[in-house]
Amino acid sequence: MTPLITLTSDFGLLDGYVASMKGVILSICPEARLIDISHQVPAQDVVTGALLLESTVPYFPRHALHLAVVDPGVGTDRKALALSTPEAIFIGPDNGLFGLVWQAAQTRFKPEQLQAVAVTEEKYRLHPVSPTFHGRDIFAPAAAHLARGVSIDELGEPIGQILPAPIPEPRRQGNVIEGQVIAVDRFGNCTTNLTEKMLSDLGPRDQWTASAGDLDLGPVRLTYAEVSPGQPLALIGSGGRLELAIRNGNYQEATGSGRRSPVRISLLEK
Amino acid sequence: MTPLITLTSDFGLLDGYVASMKGVILSICPEARLIDISHQVPAQDVVTGALLLESTVPYFPRHALHLAVVDPGVGTDRKALALSTPEAIFIGPDNGLFGLVWQAAQTRFKPEQLQAVAVTEEKYRLHPVSPTFHGRDIFAPAAAHLARGVSIDELGEPIGQILPAPIPEPRRQGNVIEGQVIAVDRFGNCTTNLTEKMLSDLGPRDQWTASAGDLDLGPVRLTYAEVSPGQPLALIGSGGRLELAIRNGNYQEATGSGRRSPVRISLLEK
Amino acid sequence: MTPLITLTSDFGLLDGYVASMKGVILSICPEARLIDISHQVPAQDVVTGALLLESTVPYFPRHALHLAVVDPGVGTDRKALALSTPEAIFIGPDNGLFGLVWQAAQTRFKPEQLQAVAVTEEKYRLHPVSPTFHGRDIFAPAAAHLARGVSIDELGEPIGQILPAPIPEPRRQGNVIEGQVIAVDRFGNCTTNLTEKMLSDLGPRDQWTASAGDLDLGPVRLTYAEVSPGQPLALIGSGGRLELAIRNGNYQEATGSGRRSPVRISLLEK
Repeated sequence: MTPLITLTSDFGLLDGYVASMKGVILSICPEARLIDISHQVPAQDVVTGALLLESTVPYFPRHALHLAVVDPGVGTDRKALALSTPEAIFIGPDNGLFGLVWQAAQTRFKPEQLQAVAVTEEKYRLHPVSPTFHGRDIFAPAAAHLARGVSIDELGEPIGQILPAPIPEPRRQGNVIEGQVIAVDRFGNCTTNLTEKMLSDLGPRDQWTASAGDLDLGPVRLTYAEVSPGQPLALIGSGGRLELAIRNGNYQEATGSGRRSPVRISLLEK
Repeated sequence: MTPLITLTSDFGLLDGYVASMKGVILSICPEARLIDISHQVPAQDVVTGALLLESTVPYFPRHALHLAVVDPGVGTDRKALALSTPEAIFIGPDNGLFGLVWQAAQTRFKPEQLQAVAVTEEKYRLHPVSPTFHGRDIFAPAAAHLARGVSIDELGEPIGQILPAPIPEPRRQGNVIEGQVIAVDRFGNCTTNLTEKMLSDLGPRDQWTASAGDLDLGPVRLTYAEVSPGQPLALIGSGGRLELAIRNGNYQEATGSGRRSPVRISLLEK
Repeated sequence: MTPLITLTSDFGLLDGYVASMKGVILSICPEARLIDISHQVPAQDVVTGALLLESTVPYFPRHALHLAVVDPGVGTDRKALALSTPEAIFIGPDNGLFGLVWQAAQTRFKPEQLQAVAVTEEKYRLHPVSPTFHGRDIFAPAAAHLARGVSIDELGEPIGQILPAPIPEPRRQGNVIEGQVIAVDRFGNCTTNLTEKMLSDLGPRDQWTASAGDLDLGPVRLTYAEVSPGQPLALIGSGGRLELAIRNGNYQEATGSGRRSPVRISLLEK
């Protein structure tokens, strides 16, 4: 089976950083297939990177390797990670970037099916290791060696825990769950820390009612078309999270919302 | 033969939309080769998408599958299309996006060599189908199944016609043909609805003379270098259409032109 | 062995130019693997293109073909080049774009190991050749034919020299070497014409001391973290060249620097 490696980063495509990583991978594992997820994660924005992995990884084939580098701590003592689940392998910095996909794996698999390793083995690196570009010198070679069949525990020692994504937990009280905005996209749509699953745990879909501070957003919608142009709404985005938006408009600008702005779902009594 | 699938959309590369489609394709058809045409079609701009396919598809190998998603009508009752010609297969929404490549196919092939199908077969979709992201849940799986050898008529019922590209027909009167600007690129160059073939039908190339409203553009040029910097000109772009430009300048800004601005070619009497 | 072709250009990804080149390559050599280095070289910026190749090519596998098109002279009589070294093949215009990789090859290999050819053979082109798009009609087909096994000397006649990158030589006087800024990236970081090797020839690393005009930059650093936020510094970038930067800031804006701004390294007397 041809190995598949996806790449995610905040490097952009103006410079040669992504190309260098691809060259390194293909020098070690010439048959690897490389698919870009995105290299336009906002600079050092670990939360947006974590959300991007959460929304795309489930659509990739089993056993894909996901290499992700959003790495504000490069050059510090943050760990380098390799993670494996029965469905995927992840490589990158231990800073929360893999927090959401790892959390999802923990709800679906048994602990003995999951493996987390601190990547330290010198022979699977480029030398010298640049102090500012571990993507090229540590993570890309590690991914390529895994793609060639090196087993994850040859990369370093097992570790017990990885850092969670820096996203606050929603608070649930009875028929109400309170969350917040955790990312804003370029259209001004706001992604929240409330997932479709959390709302399903709260109650049936046709009773979900949304508000954001003083703003009543009405029932959680299926599509934009359910409201008039210019009207705000809440809906489950294609990534499975509650999103706040304005039809044909910019929710962030119109409401002054941003990261940490509150959102609340309550159950409509019938 | 390894199947080749090209991808065109207005999704941009900031989010995970394109990556999700690629993951879906590779989950169904792991050996498919994926080539991006562009994901930076202006949002919902079907005409620019149609022009992009027109100018690039002829350079791809025979039997490539071209998946294109510029889909302002997602969630409405617009049809999902699969089209086949002796040279290519196209998958995407029925909104004019394939109007130009289909028109070109109709001039080159016999009707019995062409096939158009409304994609409806449930078993070649992801479930549930997101109301806002048919690219991932309908078009990408359809393309991947075609790449694996499913025949186009297994996807749904034949249809007689598809929507044409929303581009007006030029008007020809004797030695004159009148057209208009249909797209403007980021340099301010204006693409028109006049093709090289239309002008060749009008008369010999060395007699083509261009004007745009009151602006005399002189003979249709072969290269920018034929005029001085700052001067406007008309030439046949590398995509085979008449374009209006200013050497080292921005035609749109300098002339106040835009979509629907008129252009006229007349034959110079010798 | 599957042929690998990298692509570099200033075409951007909005239009179909890059896709057309890829279609042409895959029509001639269907098994070629295509990897983008970058298509966002600033328009007609040969120096930035040359630096990009310099910093990425060394990380690609041996025998990769590197197709690069930053081509302000398209349509003039500038030559079309094919270059081969024991490690790589290069295809593109003769305007300095390959000056840095070729200079590096000349320091590492013997003259008889290097080959430079002016690409003129009609049968390895598309016809007609567009006067404005040699990337599609000359360079892409040449690369694809080389990838299929055509030998470089079948493309045209050998030439003795190629144009160097338009980058001035630093001046060394005793314990001092004087250079200048040659490119500025989007963060305001300034790349110079001083390479790590030049500084190593000057003296030991722990004695390198940097200044830029009146600005004392202190010792050449290993990482940004060695200075306080807001402080300027000089360091060797991941591409192996001396760079000027401000930690968490924009060096270009803060100092008014740009191309040709002077930089000097002297040896600290111990």
